[in-house]
Amino acid sequence: MDYKEKIRVIEGFPIEGISYKDITTLLKDGESFAYAVDEMAGLIDGQADLIAGPEARGFLFGTALAYKLGVGFIPIRKPGKLPAPTYQHEYELEYGTDALQVHIDAIPKGARVVLCDDLIATGGTLYACAKLIEQAGGEVASIIAFIELTELGGMQKLAGYSAKALVSYPS
Amino acid sequence: MDYKEKIRVIEGFPIEGISYKDITTLLKDGESFAYAVDEMAGLIDGQADLIAGPEARGFLFGTALAYKLGVGFIPIRKPGKLPAPTYQHEYELEYGTDALQVHIDAIPKGARVVLCDDLIATGGTLYACAKLIEQAGGEVASIIAFIELTELGGMQKLAGYSAKALVSYPS
Repeated sequence: MDYKEKIRVIEGFPIEGISYKDITTLLKDGESFAYAVDEMAGLIDGQADLIAGPEARGFLFGTALAYKLGVGFIPIRKPGKLPAPTYQHEYELEYGTDALQVHIDAIPKGARVVLCDDLIATGGTLYACAKLIEQAGGEVASIIAFIELTELGGMQKLAGYSAKALVSYPS
Repeated sequence: MDYKEKIRVIEGFPIEGISYKDITTLLKDGESFAYAVDEMAGLIDGQADLIAGPEARGFLFGTALAYKLGVGFIPIRKPGKLPAPTYQHEYELEYGTDALQVHIDAIPKGARVVLCDDLIATGGTLYACAKLIEQAGGEVASIIAFIELTELGGMQKLAGYSAKALVSYPS
């Protein structure tokens, strides 16, 4: 599938100079969305005990993927959102800094966790997620994103992991 | 399924006096999560052209449900998150006030949209979502939540719609 036909590119969002990849136009097309989730599932190939993803856009593909594979989903959230004790990791965003948390008791020891997000940009968000998964006792089996922005160094940041994306920009 | 066995109740989160229903313990159990999504799909029974849900927790069940039904998903987001022109609706939360937005071009005219969220508390969030769906040209076919808190008046707030939940507290 040519996903780029379904992705809307918006110049200057959220700030000038950014060429934003709007996935809402893909999400609202049921056939394309399901095709993307199925392709992600094919890349995983039985190695997942759990799927995890960061709020909010990591939930979009992540829970559908967990449902498809019949495994559980671990939400990784911004500070103050998870109600039980958490681990926290601070990280750099494409535009600023932030922190993420996961429940201390979220992951059975040694569970193989596939991380899922909509986008690999600098890789900072997914790197923080990977560290949280490990801190909570899981093993990061792989990282799967819908889009990769190849010029922001994300794959280098995530070089210690098996990271893949379904569609790449600008190539 | 006795969902309450999988939901963790945490007293005093996010503020004193609140008995918070933590669904992360259900989400991480793949069998229970899939069972809940399938039960939601059974309640819809062919009336959905699209699923929509508010960030962030509305994405958890919403996209899995869209995937299950083979339809698209419309994210309803907090201000500043959606990149294209939006409609906005302000609403009251269980703990405070907030606003939500949807893309003006998100929904084909007359499309039957099922709204999905994790929780019906006061009903304010889902009521705002319903108004946004209508403003964008859709028809709210039904509203489905995982949990209903029966003492907060949510079903009364949503009385103009067909609203259902899989599990109720306190009963």
